[in-house]
Amino acid sequence: MIRDLIVKNRSYRRYDQSVEISMELLESWVDLARYSASGRNAQPLKYILSVDREKNEKIFSTLGWAAYLKEWDGPAEGERPSAYLVQLLDTAIATNFYCDDGIAMQSILLGAVEAGFGGCIFRTINKPRLTELLNIPEQYQIINVIALGKPIEKVVIEEMCDGDFKYWRDNQEVHHVPKRMLDDLILKL
Amino acid sequence: MIRDLIVKNRSYRRYDQSVEISMELLESWVDLARYSASGRNAQPLKYILSVDREKNEKIFSTLGWAAYLKEWDGPAEGERPSAYLVQLLDTAIATNFYCDDGIAMQSILLGAVEAGFGGCIFRTINKPRLTELLNIPEQYQIINVIALGKPIEKVVIEEMCDGDFKYWRDNQEVHHVPKRMLDDLILKL
Repeated sequence: MIRDLIVKNRSYRRYDQSVEISMELLESWVDLARYSASGRNAQPLKYILSVDREKNEKIFSTLGWAAYLKEWDGPAEGERPSAYLVQLLDTAIATNFYCDDGIAMQSILLGAVEAGFGGCIFRTINKPRLTELLNIPEQYQIINVIALGKPIEKVVIEEMCDGDFKYWRDNQEVHHVPKRMLDDLILKL
Repeated sequence: MIRDLIVKNRSYRRYDQSVEISMELLESWVDLARYSASGRNAQPLKYILSVDREKNEKIFSTLGWAAYLKEWDGPAEGERPSAYLVQLLDTAIATNFYCDDGIAMQSILLGAVEAGFGGCIFRTINKPRLTELLNIPEQYQIINVIALGKPIEKVVIEEMCDGDFKYWRDNQEVHHVPKRMLDDLILKL
């Protein structure tokens, strides 16, 4: 059931770094993005794939991890992602990508979860630095980064209280994510 | 397999209007959006659900159908969507929704496809008119509309030639959608 996959697809931030992800698997997830809807059917999004240590470290160094966990700078060596996808806009194709980025990333992450992995979307990226580190040509604009790996953290969904949507981590390192209730998402007009 | 669902999830524009969609089913798809990732976990997107004839007609009248099919004004009576979701930003929660809209809509559409239905995302919407017709309070901004129904058209994926991404419809009313190849989506740096 798609519901099981969607519920299992949490934003994971700690991984078993010793579990590698192959280029073939990463490509199979980009292929899921390829089959997903695109505004005007323009398909202007492209991907840089990374599974090797050196490239992974470069990408890692440009990411902002978990804004609400003030005392945490991101996963320690050994718990870092095994792979990354850098999602780019190819400005030679289009200047607008509408909501293609989210559609594509949901497809990618559901593919990863089905294969026993998980990920996290990053929009807080030092883009000039990442552009420089990966030598990304000027034609491409960085939109998002997806970190991927074998999750080792427990993520629990909680009922949101008083509109406070900040996630938190408890003493046992369990990550808690408050969600609005279904009724709160439906506007009865 | 998630791949099968994603490949089956085409943008359908003609439906068997006699097949109804229940409010419960529509709510179950919004629940899939509820469990999907949200930037800063703010969850600022809300939904108006429509399954009744009068409301459906109002929403239909505000949508721009298939820009590339110049001689087609949209589906005829009998082939129109059975239900709609109007996706809104609740500006009382946030002024930015990042890529939440695409993530949520992919979850919703995969749920619909799994249940034997299909849909189409609209961003060409007469928003002032729709706001007026549905009496949407000022606090909410229309982001997207998802049309939903029992698809009756055949959609075929084609290999894209010479970068021409326009979809087309043939004499047999089959809808053809050119897609870029996987290699074209991967930037080897």
